[in-house]
Amino acid sequence: MNSFIYNIPTKVYFGENQLGNLGKELQQFGKRVLLTYGGGSIKRIGLYDRVMTELRNAGMEVFELSGIEPNPRIESVREGVKICKEQNIDVLLAVGGGSTIDATKFMAAGACVEHDAWEFFGANAKPIERALPIVTILTLAATGSEMDTAGVISNLETGDKLGRLAQPLLPKVSFLDPTLTYSVSKYQTACGSADIMSHILEVYFNTQEDLYMLDTFMEGMLKTIVKYAPVALAEPENYEARANLMWTSSWAINGFINGGKRKAWSCHPMEHELSAIYDITHGLGLAILTPRWMEYCLDETTVDKYVQYGVNVFGIDAKMDKMTIAKESIRMTIEFLFETLGLQRTLSEVGIKREDYPVMAAKACRYGDIKGFKTLTPKDVERIFEMCE
Amino acid sequence: MNSFIYNIPTKVYFGENQLGNLGKELQQFGKRVLLTYGGGSIKRIGLYDRVMTELRNAGMEVFELSGIEPNPRIESVREGVKICKEQNIDVLLAVGGGSTIDATKFMAAGACVEHDAWEFFGANAKPIERALPIVTILTLAATGSEMDTAGVISNLETGDKLGRLAQPLLPKVSFLDPTLTYSVSKYQTACGSADIMSHILEVYFNTQEDLYMLDTFMEGMLKTIVKYAPVALAEPENYEARANLMWTSSWAINGFINGGKRKAWSCHPMEHELSAIYDITHGLGLAILTPRWMEYCLDETTVDKYVQYGVNVFGIDAKMDKMTIAKESIRMTIEFLFETLGLQRTLSEVGIKREDYPVMAAKACRYGDIKGFKTLTPKDVERIFEMCE
Repeated sequence: MNSFIYNIPTKVYFGENQLGNLGKELQQFGKRVLLTYGGGSIKRIGLYDRVMTELRNAGMEVFELSGIEPNPRIESVREGVKICKEQNIDVLLAVGGGSTIDATKFMAAGACVEHDAWEFFGANAKPIERALPIVTILTLAATGSEMDTAGVISNLETGDKLGRLAQPLLPKVSFLDPTLTYSVSKYQTACGSADIMSHILEVYFNTQEDLYMLDTFMEGMLKTIVKYAPVALAEPENYEARANLMWTSSWAINGFINGGKRKAWSCHPMEHELSAIYDITHGLGLAILTPRWMEYCLDETTVDKYVQYGVNVFGIDAKMDKMTIAKESIRMTIEFLFETLGLQRTLSEVGIKREDYPVMAAKACRYGDIKGFKTLTPKDVERIFEMCE
Repeated sequence: MNSFIYNIPTKVYFGENQLGNLGKELQQFGKRVLLTYGGGSIKRIGLYDRVMTELRNAGMEVFELSGIEPNPRIESVREGVKICKEQNIDVLLAVGGGSTIDATKFMAAGACVEHDAWEFFGANAKPIERALPIVTILTLAATGSEMDTAGVISNLETGDKLGRLAQPLLPKVSFLDPTLTYSVSKYQTACGSADIMSHILEVYFNTQEDLYMLDTFMEGMLKTIVKYAPVALAEPENYEARANLMWTSSWAINGFINGGKRKAWSCHPMEHELSAIYDITHGLGLAILTPRWMEYCLDETTVDKYVQYGVNVFGIDAKMDKMTIAKESIRMTIEFLFETLGLQRTLSEVGIKREDYPVMAAKACRYGDIKGFKTLTPKDVERIFEMCE
């Protein structure tokens, strides 16, 4: 069992009516705040006005950067960095989902260096030793960016979508108000739920020895998604469902459940290539890939983990034959993603062309084979894409 | 569902061979460290020498306070405060179990005020606004003090054993090395496991609405204890068992599973009165009280929680009658505590006299009735003591 360091000091205000604490939390970092957000949904739901009132009451000087896109782009990051430097920004306030928060993280880091922010990515990535403090107000339960050290940025020029982890990127304070996700569409709720599920499965399906306790937590979170995602789809304003999904989204990926495992994730690097070229929603790409990856990795050496998953998450009868349970667990995952959540099933359905598989597969393995649950070569990745066709 | 603030910034080094990080973590707070420990077991297991080597290598100036007792006393706290003030201590390093860490917390707080440290306790307790930084090296999986804001101190003069929570008491850094618990006796391992179990049950059995996700975590931790405590008893050097119990001990009580519940704990205030007068091991007192408290609180209005517990933790057949499942869940708890863990079953067995029940019951309710899973008056508490006789 590997040793690990647990270090997640993000302070979280969870629940309704916590925004009254926003001002005092920002003030500890200074007066000049860069407010970042996406396409304006925060104005439609009245959140923008509530935030501005709090900022005004706290005497903050507010600068704004809106229009951060889904699958956020390096151009937005550069724009944010420019504002931070020119305006001597003290603290960044990201209001939105994972895309807005991810982009904001690299603005905060970019503001502390001379070089271009894209140099934080890729094989010869520059170190991230500092970042301006980041505060977030979450409006979508999905990526977990509100409580983790990671972010993913797209560069359309190079056709790359690359992730980066660094401790300074961890938000200092995050506001998680489940009611702010009431207006999230059925489709985005489904994609978000698939995203959360994938974050857990990437860690859960792992040949490295685990702390049993953490396995029980992962199973609990998976059961939480299976229980509440359909409720949130049917009743978008169900607080209990939105609250459970929201807190699960943070804990699925903040590093806690990892417990020292050093195996790579598999579906995320594959998916990043889909959304890098086709700009599809990340959670949708993960939904399409995950069950086929599970199918591809199933054999006599890996079957036990599927059995544990099937029995503990989906309540499959433990007395059946191992391989039968494993296959049933994949079938139930497929049923959940494509029938219960109603997500599209195949790459062709979302317009991804077969001719791009080889180059996407090669790029997914840009740093070498994916050393995850099973080691995947570019050939393996291509085969998994084909299974998703 | 209540809102809550999640704020647990303790950095944890988990696993073997992490002590090499001790020096750099202490240095960030200063050079002058007060090393606190208990009866000397840390010398027997060679830990004292390892720690001193790290401190020397980091160029720390070391002051020492040993002899901190189980159920730590206010006199030890006062002694520590005196050293902190006289020697201008920068940081406190507690090496031991919950008693040593608890005492150290109030030394750290006491060093920042003029008044006596006992004034942090009781009905008119003084505020705890600051504390010197605390670093811990844990040698016993039980109280969770290594990652929480709480501590309990005994005052033999007044016959009080009182707890206190305050954010500044949270350790900055904790080292959790499961191998340091290999030498913990069977008896202390059993008491520690009962203590961890009680921390979870105090939150789990609660009439306030919960996040389902947190219920699954609690059930996972309870299953972890049921699975691994017997392994640790049979094979004291089983890393997997010790690691699972250790990480569970921290998460059982650091506040995470609470998720905004505001109902009081029940068994802990009752137990504090036992160990205040009789100086018995806290976990043992909890083991004796917990199943009787569960029995006392079971009725038609509370039965559902017992059913959830029995089915999800002990695997009791969900198809049986509710009340039958509930009673079976209590029986299995009793079996686990007194047969599997081998703890003593009754108050009389540990020498607690019936004549003391009324005064202990009154003191347990010193701040009013215990408003927990069920509200308990002094009469109720006395009745529970009688059930434990």
